[in-house]
Amino acid sequence: MSEDSGRIGRPQVEALDAILGVPLKVLDDGFVRVVDYMGADESIVQAARVSYGRGTRKLHEDRGLIRYLMRHWHTTPFEMCEIKLHVRVPMDCWRQWIRHRSASVNEMSTRYSIAIDATQRTTESDWRGQSSDNRQGSSGLLDAVQGTMLSAREAELQDFARSIYQERLDLGVAREQARKDLPLSTYTEAYWKIDLHNLLHFLRLRMDTHAQQEIRDYANVIGEQVVAKWCPFAWEAFKDYQFHSVGLTRLEQAVIREVASGNKDAALAAAKEFGWLERGEKVLKTNRERSECESKLADLGLAAPWKE
Amino acid sequence: MSEDSGRIGRPQVEALDAILGVPLKVLDDGFVRVVDYMGADESIVQAARVSYGRGTRKLHEDRGLIRYLMRHWHTTPFEMCEIKLHVRVPMDCWRQWIRHRSASVNEMSTRYSIAIDATQRTTESDWRGQSSDNRQGSSGLLDAVQGTMLSAREAELQDFARSIYQERLDLGVAREQARKDLPLSTYTEAYWKIDLHNLLHFLRLRMDTHAQQEIRDYANVIGEQVVAKWCPFAWEAFKDYQFHSVGLTRLEQAVIREVASGNKDAALAAAKEFGWLERGEKVLKTNRERSECESKLADLGLAAPWKE
Amino acid sequence: MSEDSGRIGRPQVEALDAILGVPLKVLDDGFVRVVDYMGADESIVQAARVSYGRGTRKLHEDRGLIRYLMRHWHTTPFEMCEIKLHVRVPMDCWRQWIRHRSASVNEMSTRYSIAIDATQRTTESDWRGQSSDNRQGSSGLLDAVQGTMLSAREAELQDFARSIYQERLDLGVAREQARKDLPLSTYTEAYWKIDLHNLLHFLRLRMDTHAQQEIRDYANVIGEQVVAKWCPFAWEAFKDYQFHSVGLTRLEQAVIREVASGNKDAALAAAKEFGWLERGEKVLKTNRERSECESKLADLGLAAPWKE
Amino acid sequence: MSEDSGRIGRPQVEALDAILGVPLKVLDDGFVRVVDYMGADESIVQAARVSYGRGTRKLHEDRGLIRYLMRHWHTTPFEMCEIKLHVRVPMDCWRQWIRHRSASVNEMSTRYSIAIDATQRTTESDWRGQSSDNRQGSSGLLDAVQGTMLSAREAELQDFARSIYQERLDLGVAREQARKDLPLSTYTEAYWKIDLHNLLHFLRLRMDTHAQQEIRDYANVIGEQVVAKWCPFAWEAFKDYQFHSVGLTRLEQAVIREVASGNKDAALAAAKEFGWLERGEKVLKTNRERSECESKLADLGLAAPWKE
Repeated sequence: MSEDSGRIGRPQVEALDAILGVPLKVLDDGFVRVVDYMGADESIVQAARVSYGRGTRKLHEDRGLIRYLMRHWHTTPFEMCEIKLHVRVPMDCWRQWIRHRSASVNEMSTRYSIAIDATQRTTESDWRGQSSDNRQGSSGLLDAVQGTMLSAREAELQDFARSIYQERLDLGVAREQARKDLPLSTYTEAYWKIDLHNLLHFLRLRMDTHAQQEIRDYANVIGEQVVAKWCPFAWEAFKDYQFHSVGLTRLEQAVIREVASGNKDAALAAAKEFGWLERGEKVLKTNRERSECESKLADLGLAAPWKE
Repeated sequence: MSEDSGRIGRPQVEALDAILGVPLKVLDDGFVRVVDYMGADESIVQAARVSYGRGTRKLHEDRGLIRYLMRHWHTTPFEMCEIKLHVRVPMDCWRQWIRHRSASVNEMSTRYSIAIDATQRTTESDWRGQSSDNRQGSSGLLDAVQGTMLSAREAELQDFARSIYQERLDLGVAREQARKDLPLSTYTEAYWKIDLHNLLHFLRLRMDTHAQQEIRDYANVIGEQVVAKWCPFAWEAFKDYQFHSVGLTRLEQAVIREVASGNKDAALAAAKEFGWLERGEKVLKTNRERSECESKLADLGLAAPWKE
Repeated sequence: MSEDSGRIGRPQVEALDAILGVPLKVLDDGFVRVVDYMGADESIVQAARVSYGRGTRKLHEDRGLIRYLMRHWHTTPFEMCEIKLHVRVPMDCWRQWIRHRSASVNEMSTRYSIAIDATQRTTESDWRGQSSDNRQGSSGLLDAVQGTMLSAREAELQDFARSIYQERLDLGVAREQARKDLPLSTYTEAYWKIDLHNLLHFLRLRMDTHAQQEIRDYANVIGEQVVAKWCPFAWEAFKDYQFHSVGLTRLEQAVIREVASGNKDAALAAAKEFGWLERGEKVLKTNRERSECESKLADLGLAAPWKE
Repeated sequence: MSEDSGRIGRPQVEALDAILGVPLKVLDDGFVRVVDYMGADESIVQAARVSYGRGTRKLHEDRGLIRYLMRHWHTTPFEMCEIKLHVRVPMDCWRQWIRHRSASVNEMSTRYSIAIDATQRTTESDWRGQSSDNRQGSSGLLDAVQGTMLSAREAELQDFARSIYQERLDLGVAREQARKDLPLSTYTEAYWKIDLHNLLHFLRLRMDTHAQQEIRDYANVIGEQVVAKWCPFAWEAFKDYQFHSVGLTRLEQAVIREVASGNKDAALAAAKEFGWLERGEKVLKTNRERSECESKLADLGLAAPWKE
């Protein structure tokens, strides 16, 4: 590998350098700031070349290799890029964020410092209803009258909580104890460092429509405003081959194969064998897996054979 | 390794089986329950034997080998034991706990379920003062009059926060949003699974006098009531060789060597070279590293040469 | 969670207990032995219940919940099961195995002990040819004459390497240095401990047709003879929803949608836009992504529109 | 944190930039090359400031904070620096290296490419004897006559192994199978990326006198020629407070305390209680822990009371 052996410089990404240190606003008082990074699209290619031997030299070949790696889940070259973000996030949201164990974290300590005097506030028009078909989701918005009341009550609670916190500090209560009743909406800050592979995994889960709105807002900013600038080929490939891909289970393949070939009866027989077609009094019983298959059939422009 | 090749049973620990499933109370409404475990002291020995070749057969040899491994930080055999706990912890405490990334976790979801209706309450005599010499610690207790007031205000805030939470749920606000202003003192529950090596690391940090009282309470229960029963040899070795060990830096060794040999001047010269003896107007300037060395000297029964 | 609070026993799996400690043969002189385990299908359900609230009680509901979790990549409950294997593997194969960083490992030390006196030998009929279309794969077998010669030469080399090793030891060379020229085919042994989620990830990659035959042999034994007994519901769900699933990229969905709806021209236009249809002198240029789409179309019983 | 919010540049380290890409030679044909890095001493300080609040501004304060963090094992700020190395290492050495699971790795694939045609060769004067008191170590060197013979035989084996490899390739055997009998001394190459905290942990173990000479050579180059340039304050602190520190166990403290205070009888009583003074026929039985204490006493200039 003699030709690699001369002096080299660090890969640089101008589009990312242009926003280094600049807070990208999220929610009412949060942000994401890129503090530092290592590597670029070319670093993914460079690492893959160690495994696969040398070869690609031209820009369009780099793009092709990155797309190949992404499509086939060859993940280790994507670990070769690293990014460090400074984030400001409500603790409630941070509780979800911190579950991703592959990052390095330095969070502001409210044992050592006084807690940030900011909480996430909800505007009148942002109160979401409980979803009835998804136990862990939201659906629709509450009306303006309710919203106005809820936001007023929210302010009342947050102000009271802060005054209690201040009262404790004034009396000399230890910071580590005084903070114990702060609302989960209180903002915290952290340095968060992660490699590109694990960041994309985070984004796959947190940009998903099932993720909570607040963390989706952060994920979308990180994806569309940071990763898209940092590693544009990897980002494009991620969207084409992972984020917007759809998986067909062994069962779904069996049904779709028959439907696509026009064998409606065979498709129905397969679905029945899978237990998807149990009848209630008048109609088919609710079956989650069947519904999932239906929506995949619809996406492929095919009709579900059990629907007339 | 032919002799290992017959049918075997799983290692069992009677003392731990006796408390399996039983909640060990912590704080006012928290607990730790052992749900399952894998391995025992003998499993540590068994794994070490793969590396070191066979040999020890007798109980006292097992103890000796475990102590040797612990003393020399041969950590991988301790990874061969695994334990699963069900814990109930205030979210404030859980925020510290979850920073240990080597565990597997399933936490109760307040998107999916209604939050636990219990918060950690502080009794009148449990309000701690802010430490003046340790920015992140507590020191002393507040007096009874202040304590009574603080506990009353705490109840007021916690009750108000819960009523707002309930109000939101009653109006149909999504659970994932309704929870946003719950106090950090709200209890959560989780299954927490970790191997013995990483658990001991957790305990080393969280049983330490610098850890916050609340998480120390949990750590002490896990250490003294769980690990001590589960792997008694490893636990004894951990205390002798890690938890109660003290480290001497290169600088401290240099000073102690001279003090122990009676070379006071050489000790002073070394301390001076390290920058420990800068004088203020009348006395030595505060120097953290010098103070640390002083307390280690004292523990060894030696006098600090810069003190008359 | 009061009902969970009584004394409990550890989950047991009779079918796995029946093979505990028994070597399951792999390759000519390798094996896999289950040494210990923690948890069972029911432990996955139990952990999920902490997150999702209680509910399922019956066996068929357990199966349904496990299948739901697997289908939707809710991975953390699968981390709650743990298994410890004793394996005997050629070092060449172990080099691939050890790349999975989520396991705990105690490998036999050839610094401390004399290396195992066994190498993987290849029979006359097991020499594989280099694949021409897959740079990292095999294809077909060499003929008997060549095979006989190759096996003889293999024995010659392995015997010579061992005699050199022995010669060094006899002369008093340190074991850590004497081993330096042992062939990669030399067997090693290790304790390998991993949770079910990470084990399934290992199996997904190593049971795959692109994995090298030797490690596939181990993976198949672990999957079909161990996991299938240990957590049968999880194993069945893994095969239905992960191992035998197929992913359709955004691009493939676009093409398949048009093909399934009978819009051949639209399908061709999409494929052209994706750069899949560049022509060489007479035929379409080789395009990997197009080929992948073709085989997915074929699996679904659909014709590729660019083929007459 | 408003003052952090303007445009910033990436931290740069001139001394490291000067060797970026340049192979630092190790062993007869190995090397270590810095390919990329993120962060510097100042990044450690910056991350700590998020936890501890702002403050230090001057260079000597940065040094003091880094030393404080290192002395007290506040490890997370050191995770904020990342480095990527390209290494060329014999597979035997790589087998030890790869056990550190916290790094990201892309290793050259000998399924995909032909194995590197270079093996580590041992000169006549480099054959080490087996240590008699340390089962996993070396001690002394073999004489010139033996060395000459051993090196000749080594060459013979390595050449034969390569010719067999070539013979297989010539006959069309798949690369993945042809490689199976390559000697462990064969060089491999990899990109290896790790954060500073985990790199220092690697160096602590691999620069140790108990580590095998070959990997120590690599560790010393990485430490003294790379980390020393990259983060000089962290490197100095690492040596003062971790690498050259010595730990005193609870038992050793008890003995040393009595010795330092001149209470020889009490020291002997403690040692006896610990089981360190069992007598054989004439002299004290060998006791590893007692020996360890003796050498620590000697380092502190104190006499072991059980020695006359």
